[in-house]
Amino acid sequence: MLKRFVLLLQCPDRKGIVALVSQFILRCGGNIITADQYSTDPDGGRFFMRVEFCSSSAARDSLRKDFVKIARRFGAEWRIFDKADTLRMGIMVSRPGHCLAELLYLWKINELRVEIPFILSNFPDHEQMARHYGIPFYFVPATAKDRREKEILGLLKNETDFLVLARYMLVLSKKFLTVYGKDIINIHHGFLPSFKGAHPYRQALEKGVKVIGATAHFANERLDDGPIITQAVQQVSHRDTLETLVSKGRNLEKSALASAVTSYIDYRIIRYGKKTIVF
Amino acid sequence: MLKRFVLLLQCPDRKGIVALVSQFILRCGGNIITADQYSTDPDGGRFFMRVEFCSSSAARDSLRKDFVKIARRFGAEWRIFDKADTLRMGIMVSRPGHCLAELLYLWKINELRVEIPFILSNFPDHEQMARHYGIPFYFVPATAKDRREKEILGLLKNETDFLVLARYMLVLSKKFLTVYGKDIINIHHGFLPSFKGAHPYRQALEKGVKVIGATAHFANERLDDGPIITQAVQQVSHRDTLETLVSKGRNLEKSALASAVTSYIDYRIIRYGKKTIVF
Amino acid sequence: MLKRFVLLLQCPDRKGIVALVSQFILRCGGNIITADQYSTDPDGGRFFMRVEFCSSSAARDSLRKDFVKIARRFGAEWRIFDKADTLRMGIMVSRPGHCLAELLYLWKINELRVEIPFILSNFPDHEQMARHYGIPFYFVPATAKDRREKEILGLLKNETDFLVLARYMLVLSKKFLTVYGKDIINIHHGFLPSFKGAHPYRQALEKGVKVIGATAHFANERLDDGPIITQAVQQVSHRDTLETLVSKGRNLEKSALASAVTSYIDYRIIRYGKKTIVF
Amino acid sequence: MLKRFVLLLQCPDRKGIVALVSQFILRCGGNIITADQYSTDPDGGRFFMRVEFCSSSAARDSLRKDFVKIARRFGAEWRIFDKADTLRMGIMVSRPGHCLAELLYLWKINELRVEIPFILSNFPDHEQMARHYGIPFYFVPATAKDRREKEILGLLKNETDFLVLARYMLVLSKKFLTVYGKDIINIHHGFLPSFKGAHPYRQALEKGVKVIGATAHFANERLDDGPIITQAVQQVSHRDTLETLVSKGRNLEKSALASAVTSYIDYRIIRYGKKTIVF
Repeated sequence: MLKRFVLLLQCPDRKGIVALVSQFILRCGGNIITADQYSTDPDGGRFFMRVEFCSSSAARDSLRKDFVKIARRFGAEWRIFDKADTLRMGIMVSRPGHCLAELLYLWKINELRVEIPFILSNFPDHEQMARHYGIPFYFVPATAKDRREKEILGLLKNETDFLVLARYMLVLSKKFLTVYGKDIINIHHGFLPSFKGAHPYRQALEKGVKVIGATAHFANERLDDGPIITQAVQQVSHRDTLETLVSKGRNLEKSALASAVTSYIDYRIIRYGKKTIVF
Repeated sequence: MLKRFVLLLQCPDRKGIVALVSQFILRCGGNIITADQYSTDPDGGRFFMRVEFCSSSAARDSLRKDFVKIARRFGAEWRIFDKADTLRMGIMVSRPGHCLAELLYLWKINELRVEIPFILSNFPDHEQMARHYGIPFYFVPATAKDRREKEILGLLKNETDFLVLARYMLVLSKKFLTVYGKDIINIHHGFLPSFKGAHPYRQALEKGVKVIGATAHFANERLDDGPIITQAVQQVSHRDTLETLVSKGRNLEKSALASAVTSYIDYRIIRYGKKTIVF
Repeated sequence: MLKRFVLLLQCPDRKGIVALVSQFILRCGGNIITADQYSTDPDGGRFFMRVEFCSSSAARDSLRKDFVKIARRFGAEWRIFDKADTLRMGIMVSRPGHCLAELLYLWKINELRVEIPFILSNFPDHEQMARHYGIPFYFVPATAKDRREKEILGLLKNETDFLVLARYMLVLSKKFLTVYGKDIINIHHGFLPSFKGAHPYRQALEKGVKVIGATAHFANERLDDGPIITQAVQQVSHRDTLETLVSKGRNLEKSALASAVTSYIDYRIIRYGKKTIVF
Repeated sequence: MLKRFVLLLQCPDRKGIVALVSQFILRCGGNIITADQYSTDPDGGRFFMRVEFCSSSAARDSLRKDFVKIARRFGAEWRIFDKADTLRMGIMVSRPGHCLAELLYLWKINELRVEIPFILSNFPDHEQMARHYGIPFYFVPATAKDRREKEILGLLKNETDFLVLARYMLVLSKKFLTVYGKDIINIHHGFLPSFKGAHPYRQALEKGVKVIGATAHFANERLDDGPIITQAVQQVSHRDTLETLVSKGRNLEKSALASAVTSYIDYRIIRYGKKTIVF
């Protein structure tokens, strides 16, 4: 039976990396399905690679063990994933439920191959939706004054492989990010770097822009500032009101977030400084 | 023979404006071709209207004279244009010539029905292109230190009805704008309000955005800040270099500027505070 | 208390229509909020108009009664709607549930202001979703051989003001359309007029197109041929498989259908021959 | 001094191709800059690869000679290009000159790194533009009745590496294609496979579509049927007339054709049956 693996790798660019990686896969009885690579500069830049390969004989752990030596020769950061493994995606959400509804529906029809161990919210509104999909719902009434981060971390730290903020309206502290220590994907309802912070559609309305956007990005310790993964945009006009902007924005947010999560769980994203490589 | 006219109007919203305007047009023997209207708030907001009508008997000056009384009843700002009249569009440009080339080509094939009394540049590069299209070329070697605004104003003030900055790389002073006193359309090679000022594509590259844009707007006394007319956007990726962003950006700039100028000369734009109504 | 009304009208174009309509509204104590009009040709073409107005004194039925005479003078087809009235939208669906899920979620958050008297399906799959939203679910196991149209008509004819085929995979007969006699909005998962009929994504894949689309249109007696309301499109590439095309297509279908239904219930659509005017 | 090369390859998919290719490049002292690959099916499908690599020591002809053996092992079709070589692009055009103007402007600012040995037209209109850019202009008054293909072939066969039909309005015969024997890129002013043949914008208008498109494709012996390279699309509405569709279409045609030609001269396109792989 054919298994599928993904190798993600980054290292200083130099000759022979692809040759070594492809020989390694060949030696493991693997056949490359797709390979993507990118170099910031072939003459002394940084090199990024994603290889998806299949094999009837290889196993994830032995692949990892065997790759250590090769990676060392290049000073590479790398990870190998077995595509049969399923990531555990925690969802945090406040009142706006459209991104949550989109993720859950895609999950239900097997478009998002993840486990969802729970939905955590600082409002009780989405409990019925969670129940409809058979997912545990944690209601933690956090507020800007009392973010209850310790309690939240206790709930999710060991239960998730990554976290999605599907319109969670409280900022997470730097300490939270450090303690959690894994990737957190946030959806911002504005076209970053414009319109950070609260009420981006109101800001867009007041500025009179003719295009609005939504941005899925990794959370970092600054508000709406982490590496951008996906941006979706749409034409608007003077006729748009705050209400219609919010409504159009919902579509952008849903599709930008779903696209970012899909890339993430397909191991297509490599973080590099303040940016992302999305293969 | 049928003549075509455009009425642009704005006033405080109240009952009966459309009725009076349409009766006026009927009395003048006119038939409404298209009418657009917009109110910021039907209950005490501001009302905007564009009516295009045709008539075999009316004349621009008598229409204007007759409309004065009606307009007074509403406290309206208004203008009536005869579509057979041709606006004189001055073009200012620095080294990047793609927007200039686009405007000239559209003008040549009668897509842009304007007169172009001259092309003014602070570089000599585009003289041959101007000559190819049979348009006078004014070379004024302005620099950031010596903007030669007085000289430039002398050349264009009485020769133009509006001005297009087709990638003119010097900022015009507040005084210039005041003395010129007519509309100036600028193309900014970034997605405003992000990435104002110089090198927007470099800023976009450093931020790692996944969408770039270009913005056509009216110039005001602050850099890249005036009312937005048109924005064009395009998806980009980590593979894009400064060079490819600039190249993709050219397309956006050309099409955003051409679209803005087309709307302008078709009398589709009403300025209102920091924003535009584009019918 | 202010009521909102919409007047939809079409007639042969001639002078004075707007004047008469706007005077009528003024006489009824109304204030025009937005008005859109379009003429296929101001010199002897067909004229279309949508006026949204508010009034504290008018009532729908008296407006209708009063408008009869005016309409007669122009030979106009017209309708007047009270925006407080709620349309009853029947939904028919087969196995693919993404369009259904989208409509129900938008309805739940009050984006779609309709009543949904039932969901009718020829598969039992969506019963739980219907129950989750508290909407009656009719399971009618129709097939291509036995479409059970009489039974279906019996269920929906008097209970609905219009019908949405949210991926209902059986063709409705001409007789069904005639007996039902009201508007039916269908979503086709292809970019019409290309790729009619079954398996449009497979057709797109085989042709090697670089853009796919979805089309919301009124059903008529020919397959996938009725007047187009909305089309949504997306770039694709050689990397797309049938599976990824279907997945991307879901997004297009959802947003094209939701947009068409939104326009419909906001009384923005006028049918005219084989085409639509969407104001 | 670093030279840049591109290897394009297709063959039946099997294990070890990437390993062999990357070792080959390493042996030649090359460093891979970007590599793209695609397989229709890793289990017995067809494999496509584009590798761009740089080397200070390798030469095109020796690379070709050395690669023969490797290619034979895989049954590969392949080509190796030195990016310093410049392709000769012949342009054929009828009256609409916007695609021609776009290509020439991009060529002038070094965006299109090709030689343009001539512009051939069946109308004399563009002679001045050709002269402005310093390119020979061949006027061959071909018509639908007398296509003068022999004369045209005589002019271009040995002078060009590929041909661009930048709105050339006569169909080329199968014999022409066979005798010419090299790639021909055509721009069709419609969204294929809809609206083949003449007057696609008229067809789009009559059908009442809400999106129009343009398609750049390789010419084959059937009208508007060859492998699609690029498609560009834009929303339209009932307000669009034939004139505005044509005008919006110009933008689509320009950008679709320029994008296709750019991909072609960067050796990013592999033809495969009725489709293209565009890396």
